[in-house]
Amino acid sequence: MPDIIDLSDLMHAISLVAVAMMAAAGVLEAGRKRFDLFGMVVVAVAAALGGGSLRDMLLDRPVFWVADQTYLIAALIAALLTFFLARLFTLPARLFLIPDAVGLALFTITGTKAALVWGAPWLVASFMGVITGVMGGILRDVLCNEEPLVFQGTLYATAAWAGALVFLGLLSWPVDAGLASVLGGLLIFVVRVAAIRWSIGLPRFTARL
Amino acid sequence: MPDIIDLSDLMHAISLVAVAMMAAAGVLEAGRKRFDLFGMVVVAVAAALGGGSLRDMLLDRPVFWVADQTYLIAALIAALLTFFLARLFTLPARLFLIPDAVGLALFTITGTKAALVWGAPWLVASFMGVITGVMGGILRDVLCNEEPLVFQGTLYATAAWAGALVFLGLLSWPVDAGLASVLGGLLIFVVRVAAIRWSIGLPRFTARL
Amino acid sequence: MPDIIDLSDLMHAISLVAVAMMAAAGVLEAGRKRFDLFGMVVVAVAAALGGGSLRDMLLDRPVFWVADQTYLIAALIAALLTFFLARLFTLPARLFLIPDAVGLALFTITGTKAALVWGAPWLVASFMGVITGVMGGILRDVLCNEEPLVFQGTLYATAAWAGALVFLGLLSWPVDAGLASVLGGLLIFVVRVAAIRWSIGLPRFTARL
Repeated sequence: MPDIIDLSDLMHAISLVAVAMMAAAGVLEAGRKRFDLFGMVVVAVAAALGGGSLRDMLLDRPVFWVADQTYLIAALIAALLTFFLARLFTLPARLFLIPDAVGLALFTITGTKAALVWGAPWLVASFMGVITGVMGGILRDVLCNEEPLVFQGTLYATAAWAGALVFLGLLSWPVDAGLASVLGGLLIFVVRVAAIRWSIGLPRFTARL
Repeated sequence: MPDIIDLSDLMHAISLVAVAMMAAAGVLEAGRKRFDLFGMVVVAVAAALGGGSLRDMLLDRPVFWVADQTYLIAALIAALLTFFLARLFTLPARLFLIPDAVGLALFTITGTKAALVWGAPWLVASFMGVITGVMGGILRDVLCNEEPLVFQGTLYATAAWAGALVFLGLLSWPVDAGLASVLGGLLIFVVRVAAIRWSIGLPRFTARL
Repeated sequence: MPDIIDLSDLMHAISLVAVAMMAAAGVLEAGRKRFDLFGMVVVAVAAALGGGSLRDMLLDRPVFWVADQTYLIAALIAALLTFFLARLFTLPARLFLIPDAVGLALFTITGTKAALVWGAPWLVASFMGVITGVMGGILRDVLCNEEPLVFQGTLYATAAWAGALVFLGLLSWPVDAGLASVLGGLLIFVVRVAAIRWSIGLPRFTARL
């Protein structure tokens, strides 16, 4: 069945891109702290592999980067490349938000899909997608001792969840899985970038306690 | 075997209550921060499902909320309900300590029981109960950037451990499992509430370093 | 096959020592905070068992301390012993760095070995060794609300990774597994202690952002 092989090859390639994006975002953020080279690499790798690892442990499937060395290598190469680019050129301060948004979109959709394939019900699958997309960034921010982006109100987890739900909705309509993935992922990226650009957020909540 | 079905139905219901309690406590604490609506829901769900997830991953059994959508739904409903109640009424500042204590008691006993059923030795089972009870709250406090309640010296983990050990002791006496659960859980709740009410704590320790 | 039994007995003994060392380091660091007795024990146990737990969950094998009570007991005894010693004698402030370095060395090598035995490729195995060695200390520092030692630039994760790679290199040369373990572990300990003693570190990196 060449179709399935092609699809899983494509999934693999997309996951590699997502891993590389998250690693680059990790370096760009860690670079603002005074970490040593290796500490920076650790943050980048944790950011790149953290979300998917948690998803796989929760689903009780083999963790995606353990049996397959390419993910770790992609994270390392992306981290080192970003490191040297950042030394050569002066990069805009919030540049890391772009690879972060791409990584968020790719990870959320692949995470939702993985949970669906595993047999999780749709609400769980959408939540698993959010975890996959969001967890790496949370880990990066916690290790960098920054307040997590997720809670800064610019539609971070919200964008991920909306994209996951749209993806699931399109699938059940039914739209082709590939198209549904692209539309769901695009929605996440666009919402996220728009939210950053125009500082859109959900209304914040303060309980009268 | 209607007996087993009944028991596991009861366990299920109790777990749902514990999940809802922890979600409510999460919203009440997150509400004091200026999180957006979704960030608050994330904190509530992490608090509600975190402890049991870690327990199940450590025991290498299927994570309890992945195959069964009801837990996630219970957490979401409890979070939204608490959210709207907190907007309508002015709630006392430390109200979240009550659902937190109920959740601690229920999670500790169900966690200990789950580890026993899995075949863990008693000391490990009691520790697994403490993890189940305590981890959700730690996660909530870390995400809210508060110092974890666990370490604030008012018999948090201590109450959980005492309850787990009493439960295990009663079981081996042998007392009926249901009665042992109730007594162990009640002990946790009473010790915890008394510790908050009268600020009882273990003697604090400072090493002469 | 007495050889295999002996080897796994030795591995068991070494793991127990590593667990005890990390627990002692946890108490010595938690002792500088005003934790209560039980909070301190929780930090010590988390430090002692955290790294290996994450490794086992990532490798999807049974978590090492769940089926075998001795690890938990070793951690508890080491924690209580250190606690009473620290009350009797005035201990030098940075004493905890020595058991920490021993634990780092032992955990890194056993973690690398466990991943290899499981069938992980070499790069993943070395990284798994670093996680096993480093994670307990990160957990301890996060729970103590200290900036993680790992990121303080004195060759913490770097020493672990170097030792893991030397161990893997010697194995493939091939050198006897026992000798390779000793040499790899010794390297980690020596590099780490030298780095602390003479404040050696990797050049720190600040991106021009």
